[in-house]
Amino acid sequence: MASEPDTKTASDNVAQSPTGDAYLLTPGPLTTSLTVKQAMLHDYGSRDVNFIDLNRRVCEQLLDIADAREGYACVPVQGSGTFAVEAMLATMLPPQGKLLNLVNGAYGHRISEICRYLGRQCLVHESGEELPLDPDVVEEALAAGTDITHVSVVYCETTSGILNPLAQIAEVVARHGRALLIDAMSAFGALPLSAKDISFDALAASSSKCLQGVPGMGFCLIREDALAQTAGNAHSLSLDLYQQAQTMSKVGQWRFTPPVHCLLALAQALEELDEEGGVAARGRRYNDNCQILKKGMRALGFTTLLPDELQAPIIVTFHMPAHPEFEFQQFYDRLSMKGYIIYPGKITRADTFRIGCIGDLGAEQMQCFIAAVKQTLGEMGIEKLTS
Amino acid sequence: MASEPDTKTASDNVAQSPTGDAYLLTPGPLTTSLTVKQAMLHDYGSRDVNFIDLNRRVCEQLLDIADAREGYACVPVQGSGTFAVEAMLATMLPPQGKLLNLVNGAYGHRISEICRYLGRQCLVHESGEELPLDPDVVEEALAAGTDITHVSVVYCETTSGILNPLAQIAEVVARHGRALLIDAMSAFGALPLSAKDISFDALAASSSKCLQGVPGMGFCLIREDALAQTAGNAHSLSLDLYQQAQTMSKVGQWRFTPPVHCLLALAQALEELDEEGGVAARGRRYNDNCQILKKGMRALGFTTLLPDELQAPIIVTFHMPAHPEFEFQQFYDRLSMKGYIIYPGKITRADTFRIGCIGDLGAEQMQCFIAAVKQTLGEMGIEKLTS
Repeated sequence: MASEPDTKTASDNVAQSPTGDAYLLTPGPLTTSLTVKQAMLHDYGSRDVNFIDLNRRVCEQLLDIADAREGYACVPVQGSGTFAVEAMLATMLPPQGKLLNLVNGAYGHRISEICRYLGRQCLVHESGEELPLDPDVVEEALAAGTDITHVSVVYCETTSGILNPLAQIAEVVARHGRALLIDAMSAFGALPLSAKDISFDALAASSSKCLQGVPGMGFCLIREDALAQTAGNAHSLSLDLYQQAQTMSKVGQWRFTPPVHCLLALAQALEELDEEGGVAARGRRYNDNCQILKKGMRALGFTTLLPDELQAPIIVTFHMPAHPEFEFQQFYDRLSMKGYIIYPGKITRADTFRIGCIGDLGAEQMQCFIAAVKQTLGEMGIEKLTS
Repeated sequence: MASEPDTKTASDNVAQSPTGDAYLLTPGPLTTSLTVKQAMLHDYGSRDVNFIDLNRRVCEQLLDIADAREGYACVPVQGSGTFAVEAMLATMLPPQGKLLNLVNGAYGHRISEICRYLGRQCLVHESGEELPLDPDVVEEALAAGTDITHVSVVYCETTSGILNPLAQIAEVVARHGRALLIDAMSAFGALPLSAKDISFDALAASSSKCLQGVPGMGFCLIREDALAQTAGNAHSLSLDLYQQAQTMSKVGQWRFTPPVHCLLALAQALEELDEEGGVAARGRRYNDNCQILKKGMRALGFTTLLPDELQAPIIVTFHMPAHPEFEFQQFYDRLSMKGYIIYPGKITRADTFRIGCIGDLGAEQMQCFIAAVKQTLGEMGIEKLTS
């Protein structure tokens, strides 16, 4: 019989982050480095030359991450990742445009919902939440739908944690002469995404997630010749990336007050990405984190929703164990007391929970987390889970 | 003849903020306290109970500032103040609504621009940038325009720094049974605004400005019975405050990733507002700052755009001096080197510049600033300005 958490037991295996906060094993907001947070201990005037310089450097670095310095503009926008995705769709889709939206999770559905708000035509092709999007289906849809102007895809769908075959889809879309819009939220900065390999008109990502800044702004990388055609498309003054890009290019400033401290943190986070060895190195660390997580959890009897070949090294979905003593809220609370915040599931057809492996976390934290899970199961009176 | 700035001379009268940053004498972003910035040295999970509690406390405190705990909802939204104003207009104005927009500056014009994006009817009544809005004109407009459903007003127009007669306008709007929407951006937290005295359906403000948090989020205080009628009004998923309020009230969470660190800073800033003595005490400090600024600048020969009775204690517009040696960019740069960032003018009909008196600044900083201005004029070879 599981007992109530007591502080004495919970004090074993308690995580020690530099700021005393719990580690965030979630899809975001994430654990950031102390130095990223310390970069926010300043106040900058947003129209002053120092801030304008910092903003320009950040935009150039974001373009460099996608090998997109030539021919693309980086257009930042205030708000969360969803704000950036909505701004991308609103700016890129003309009133007479038609979107083919490829969906295998909640973030794909969110794109459809945005199109409803925008009043833009949106044809949805949906695979199951546990299946990757199929380039052959895209091929057929584009051959049949000659009125489709744009295709949207979520690179890593954190609903399940699945990795979608972006390069193959991009190849089909380009061959058919349509424009690709990428929700790269939980991928940009850690998974390969080069404008040299992948043809896209726009992608949206955020300051948080794999870049390991703090939340508060997103950005879109937009092909300049496509951007030039978007005047008047957007439904919203705040989210009009054409106007934002015009002001940026003329005076180097945001149109409306930028989240200055978020930008200071992002500038530091981009330095730290560079110091780590760039996207490839960060992807390797996340992959190592993911391997430790999957191996450790499986050894304790947990099972993953996805087979390894479909799993992105970002967030892992686990089936809720059937063991009679396993109660998720207690599992969550006990891990929280030990300094680890995990995440509920989002899959519609199965009872699951999720554990992230991104942010300022390495092998040591992941191994300690597995030890904390083991201890938690013991506290709950569970000797061994069997699936 | 003015010489180029040289570091030796500029090292006198250099401001010393606790973080070594220049003081921001602007309409925002502003100088915040070190403790507000230090509150951001943490990472919180946005769906975790600790963050939900913090968010609830912040919303309650924001409602309390306007005596609006009863009958009003606080609905936060990511982004700058303009995002909050657009979200307020989009959510509150139904498709068949008609707005009377009272304009005496750039922020009033911005409301009209948002209405164009929204496709909402907007009747503009404009006074000059140097004149306060006239309640009698509102009276006439509402008597004549029986189809007008809403009236919008900017409380403090930082274009000039003018204080609009909010209470008198609100009285007229209420008497005609129309709904008032207030842009309270550069006022909320320092100028009187009580739901007990002023009848309004919604106001928009931000984490920055007079609350002295960092930029990155806005919020609207919305009368609950009006909010209940707004389902389906908004043009944008991200800016739909009806949906945001629904989720907030059901689970206490933002729909999309909140700017967590901005909220941590705001929570601390609200504590500091309370410690200072609340809105009245903050208003007094800003007023003292404003008096020091006007008196000191006038003693040096500068003249203000506005007569004292129209001036809000937020930001002061000064005429550009006619002296042949006065060159604004040099004046700006020299003050910047001394640790003070000032602001260009925004008035269309006159050549002006602006100096703010809000943020974490007191009499000492304002007096040192006046000394720095005096020294700067000397460096520029100007003995005495005469207007």
